[in-house]
Amino acid sequence: MSENNQPLIFITNDDGIYAKGIHELIAGVRSLGDIVVIAPDGARSGMSSAISSQNPVRLNLLQQEEGLTVYSCTGTPVDCVKLGINEILDRKPDLIISGINHGSNAAICVIYSGTIGAALEGCILGIPALGVSLTNPALDADFSQAVQYGKQIAEKILAEGLPKGVCLNLNIPNISKVKGLKICTQTPGYWTKEFQVGQDPFGRTVYWLTGEFLNEAPNDEHNDEWALNHGYAALVPLQLDMTAHPVVNILKKWE
Amino acid sequence: MSENNQPLIFITNDDGIYAKGIHELIAGVRSLGDIVVIAPDGARSGMSSAISSQNPVRLNLLQQEEGLTVYSCTGTPVDCVKLGINEILDRKPDLIISGINHGSNAAICVIYSGTIGAALEGCILGIPALGVSLTNPALDADFSQAVQYGKQIAEKILAEGLPKGVCLNLNIPNISKVKGLKICTQTPGYWTKEFQVGQDPFGRTVYWLTGEFLNEAPNDEHNDEWALNHGYAALVPLQLDMTAHPVVNILKKWE
Repeated sequence: MSENNQPLIFITNDDGIYAKGIHELIAGVRSLGDIVVIAPDGARSGMSSAISSQNPVRLNLLQQEEGLTVYSCTGTPVDCVKLGINEILDRKPDLIISGINHGSNAAICVIYSGTIGAALEGCILGIPALGVSLTNPALDADFSQAVQYGKQIAEKILAEGLPKGVCLNLNIPNISKVKGLKICTQTPGYWTKEFQVGQDPFGRTVYWLTGEFLNEAPNDEHNDEWALNHGYAALVPLQLDMTAHPVVNILKKWE
Repeated sequence: MSENNQPLIFITNDDGIYAKGIHELIAGVRSLGDIVVIAPDGARSGMSSAISSQNPVRLNLLQQEEGLTVYSCTGTPVDCVKLGINEILDRKPDLIISGINHGSNAAICVIYSGTIGAALEGCILGIPALGVSLTNPALDADFSQAVQYGKQIAEKILAEGLPKGVCLNLNIPNISKVKGLKICTQTPGYWTKEFQVGQDPFGRTVYWLTGEFLNEAPNDEHNDEWALNHGYAALVPLQLDMTAHPVVNILKKWE
């Protein structure tokens, strides 16, 4: 890594180092600073904030040139962030970007998403962090507008920072012309009809996770699903403190 | 499953179906209702809210008797909850209990914990949910007080319910006589010195996750680490909405 005054930007994802989304992101933000990438060596979708607590993880240096260093990692998205901060980088990055994810991470998907898991981990370690997702899971999706919005938000964060304990979740709709950016809340809802039941070649029942998202507030103009469904990029600030503060006092009578 | 008016209690964990903690929990709450258990077939510590998005999962019926049905599952703790609700149970359970975990799930561990991932999933699916953990990771830990407190909280939940979108995280200190229960907030902090670097038999570098928790608010009498360190059981209400609401308005100028 070069010794200079450029911002240091750390990039990871959950679709793995060979996904189109992360390469479009790297190309898009490369002009903003020195880039170090540590990304999983394959798909880690739906890994949430999972960590490798049972087995060791390995790194593999894939590329090193002026202003760009790329590793693959055998672990989870959170492992990638932890390894970068603890073992690889010689200074704290100015920004962590996770993505660009192939598929939406709006609404309750923040709970399951490896993309968001990595952004939350950056936040835990005190680094401004951004997750970027395009609502198109296709391998060859067109990331051009997601890159444009992701870069704009990255520049904002580098200039202004983020409050302690808060990271950002940016989702971009898969349409030809995004209407603009909306700051949103997390849409309430849950997944239904979650499994497709099948048989393996040995006649045993297997369950494939699938499902449909049920939006519990489809008409709330403040939430991220509303923004995406109406052609806007949706930016939700997420916090690490999961305490349901109003409930603390309600439960005090149980002491 | 028997057709009756007893409460239906669903139990899972992240240490796997052969862990002592889950069996102590099952024995401890069996008098409260009909019990259905679906737990991972091995250790899934640190799996957070991970879901099996790449591969199918399987169930294996291990035990079926009056009032108790037990399955193992090849998936994650969240998969266990989803399978139970979607595919196995003929009615919605009145309560989901995840645990008893071998080791603390206080403070920032809620983000990484498979125990808490399962409790959050119950909450997402609209079921009152409780995670229970003992601050002792030993295989043969003494779970007697954790069982006693877990059962008391389970009875409270069955009697009074929980607010929508909120589940509970109960941690029990590993001491001979717990002083009582405190309703707490999530302690802020993060893990440091996270990796032990080693070599595999082939001379390649491997990274083992380890580390030390750095408590950012050790003197705040309201948080769960303070309660545990002072001999109390700590109960934190957790919410699914991760939106940093005060930050939404601050960011509006970015639109």
